[in-house]
Amino acid sequence: MSYLNHYSYTIEKFEPEMVTYIKGTSAASQLISECMLYSLTAGGKRIRPMLLLEFCHAYGGGFKESIPFAVAIEMIHTYSLIHDDLPCMDDDDLRRGMPTSHIKYGEDMAVLAGDGLLNTAFEVMTEAALDSHDNRALKAMQTIAKAAGTQGMILGQVADIKYQSREMSLESLDYINCHKTGKLLMASMYAGAVLGGANEMELSHVETIGYKVGLLFQIVDDVLDVVGDEQKLGKKTKGDAKNEKTTYPALLGLEETKTRIKLLEAEILNLAKALSIDTTFLEETVKFLSCREY
Amino acid sequence: MSYLNHYSYTIEKFEPEMVTYIKGTSAASQLISECMLYSLTAGGKRIRPMLLLEFCHAYGGGFKESIPFAVAIEMIHTYSLIHDDLPCMDDDDLRRGMPTSHIKYGEDMAVLAGDGLLNTAFEVMTEAALDSHDNRALKAMQTIAKAAGTQGMILGQVADIKYQSREMSLESLDYINCHKTGKLLMASMYAGAVLGGANEMELSHVETIGYKVGLLFQIVDDVLDVVGDEQKLGKKTKGDAKNEKTTYPALLGLEETKTRIKLLEAEILNLAKALSIDTTFLEETVKFLSCREY
Repeated sequence: MSYLNHYSYTIEKFEPEMVTYIKGTSAASQLISECMLYSLTAGGKRIRPMLLLEFCHAYGGGFKESIPFAVAIEMIHTYSLIHDDLPCMDDDDLRRGMPTSHIKYGEDMAVLAGDGLLNTAFEVMTEAALDSHDNRALKAMQTIAKAAGTQGMILGQVADIKYQSREMSLESLDYINCHKTGKLLMASMYAGAVLGGANEMELSHVETIGYKVGLLFQIVDDVLDVVGDEQKLGKKTKGDAKNEKTTYPALLGLEETKTRIKLLEAEILNLAKALSIDTTFLEETVKFLSCREY
Repeated sequence: MSYLNHYSYTIEKFEPEMVTYIKGTSAASQLISECMLYSLTAGGKRIRPMLLLEFCHAYGGGFKESIPFAVAIEMIHTYSLIHDDLPCMDDDDLRRGMPTSHIKYGEDMAVLAGDGLLNTAFEVMTEAALDSHDNRALKAMQTIAKAAGTQGMILGQVADIKYQSREMSLESLDYINCHKTGKLLMASMYAGAVLGGANEMELSHVETIGYKVGLLFQIVDDVLDVVGDEQKLGKKTKGDAKNEKTTYPALLGLEETKTRIKLLEAEILNLAKALSIDTTFLEETVKFLSCREY
């Protein structure tokens, strides 16, 4: 089976599991559930849950035990998109080819659906930790909580909306992206490895690689915002230029940015060799990420 | 020492602990920390942390072990106020006598500060659970997570903004309030009892009492919105009438509502007698809640 087939197959198993964590009975409960599911099932590459599931599996952990954490990390990613799209933030109408949450359900429900997804992520992980016999689940939850929080993704978002400027340095841009995108991607890999039982040395190495994967992902995103196809991406491009945001292509030029992508890709593949696990899935994911068109 | 003195003394010990959980180093980190602390330290009665600390203490638990959960529940309460006050929700400019978060820091930061407080609450509880030697901490976190989530407080908020009408029944109003206010107040008491080591029978009884305390709290809030003093309350009154919200006074009339408060108070005090602990603190809190002017 090709890696892309394996990827699709895994995600096809994952997605029906994911939606079982959201249920509604009363009218109000059905409304918030519908609103959360609308964004959660709107597609998306499922890169974070996939990395978590793969790292857990590679270190010998089970699919079933890692599912709640894969679900939680996708819920956290989705809540961040819903809140980022709000009129008071990036003010985006379109996401994954569909109207954004606040366009479809109103701003009030979009705020609450985001809150609901973040809270549900922690409910799901807490339940899993209570079912667990060791503290791997708690450690995975700790990793994800920190990466999503005010020293991680939320900090990146604050830096992005408040400290972006056309004159910023490469270091500052890396700082924003490391937090805004890098931390949660790193946490997907790290939490998966924790759940699978990786030792401290392996974990530290996974962390190093994780940040680089996150950076790669963001740089490719920036390139797609310049050269990408709106149809394939399912969102408006050229948004960074419109919002006067500094991007890698704006700072380095398109060609040097593409060179940086290639260098990062090589660096990750090289670092991956030091891990004790079969890293075919990681190599395939990195290749897919750096060549992706959407 | 009178109970009110004891209350003030405990909160004076609690508040400096609470702020240590929020720190910022970089500029962006300082900004989000400042914004979270602005709302977290804007006063408030600290009813939820106080109930949690008292129940934990009454069942034999330590102050130190219960602090992270008391902090977490106050963070969750505060995040819900910040998001409730947003222009797309209740659109309030004033809270506890000060400009609301979005007036002071802008809507984008208010959304992120709310997200940050919710996420930090779970970071704090996860750390505490990792430090703990039994699963009481995890069970307390589970209680708080459920009460705050889409079957609890968030559901109540959805019901409040989407299913409020002038013609609603007393049952529907109780349903909204039980979720919007009752669940988190109940969870404060229940989580405290869990941390203190209460057995299942006691916990079930604490749950019953907790919902009634939550309802009492909300009914008094409704009365204060009609007859309260804006100066003492630190927020605009008559907001419910302005927003065409059904309240207990609107539904039952002011006198019958006051009778219901007295009945609930008596019921709680009576139920409290069946608990195995010294419930003086609960009696004092309930009396304070039902006579409060702010």
